[in-house]
Amino acid sequence: MKLPGSTEWLLHCAASLAQLKAGDTASAAQLAQYFDLPAAYLAKQLQALVKAGVLAATTGPRGGFRLARPASEITLLHVVEAVDGASSPYECREIRRQGRGALPAEDCRTPCVLAVKMAEAHRAWRDSLAATSLADIVATLPPSAPSRTRLRLTGTP
Amino acid sequence: MKLPGSTEWLLHCAASLAQLKAGDTASAAQLAQYFDLPAAYLAKQLQALVKAGVLAATTGPRGGFRLARPASEITLLHVVEAVDGASSPYECREIRRQGRGALPAEDCRTPCVLAVKMAEAHRAWRDSLAATSLADIVATLPPSAPSRTRLRLTGTP
Repeated sequence: MKLPGSTEWLLHCAASLAQLKAGDTASAAQLAQYFDLPAAYLAKQLQALVKAGVLAATTGPRGGFRLARPASEITLLHVVEAVDGASSPYECREIRRQGRGALPAEDCRTPCVLAVKMAEAHRAWRDSLAATSLADIVATLPPSAPSRTRLRLTGTP
Repeated sequence: MKLPGSTEWLLHCAASLAQLKAGDTASAAQLAQYFDLPAAYLAKQLQALVKAGVLAATTGPRGGFRLARPASEITLLHVVEAVDGASSPYECREIRRQGRGALPAEDCRTPCVLAVKMAEAHRAWRDSLAATSLADIVATLPPSAPSRTRLRLTGTP
């Protein structure tokens, strides 16, 4: 059970964009240099966050990426599921209905209890990630961090 | 983020073995027939549960698999991590230390807050699975289920 390696990239990119001033943007090239990441692949991943409504992309000479809504309204779950999708890591193929032990249809009207418990665990994981916003993350940083981030990311503190 | 497809197999096998009478066993071939699964691959997976201390394997003409300890002391987490390992789905490669935005070493004495939050979510998932034992699963079944399971799995109710 592995999340894509780019999950770390996108969490950090989103947390960095959360430190920009309202209306400012950073390009894929700037984000790639900031974290020393492969620019083309990062750009593709950033587009996934745009598609998911986490980031907004602007075009033009000063174009780039910014958060699509306030940092307090974007959770870690939004970012992680933009990268990896929202499906459960556990797949129930209903093996209870097959083989010598196959249960009759009337015993399968409710979901398999094992699938239910696996879904509960996935919900606990999702709830945990949904409880932290990008604003919460920025609030844990030293007070001097955002201006340093802005200077190194965009050249303007 | 996907668990192996065999996770469902092993959860069902463990829950079925939890319905046997004390001292009884079921072979890999019996479990494979019970769920209509590929016997050789299932046997390999069952050995992973033996290695993890979830199942015990006995040899000889009446040999097979049984739970290694009481069903109340084997949780869904034990089974799932025997199949897939216990590592977190999120990998932190410390990209905060690289590129133009690289943080100085003194700012990295504590773990990255994003890694901490991802670890909290993984802990919530693990805690959820650890809260349900195989005995809990069996307790949700109709009273007639265990003798039916035993009859179809081993030939003896």
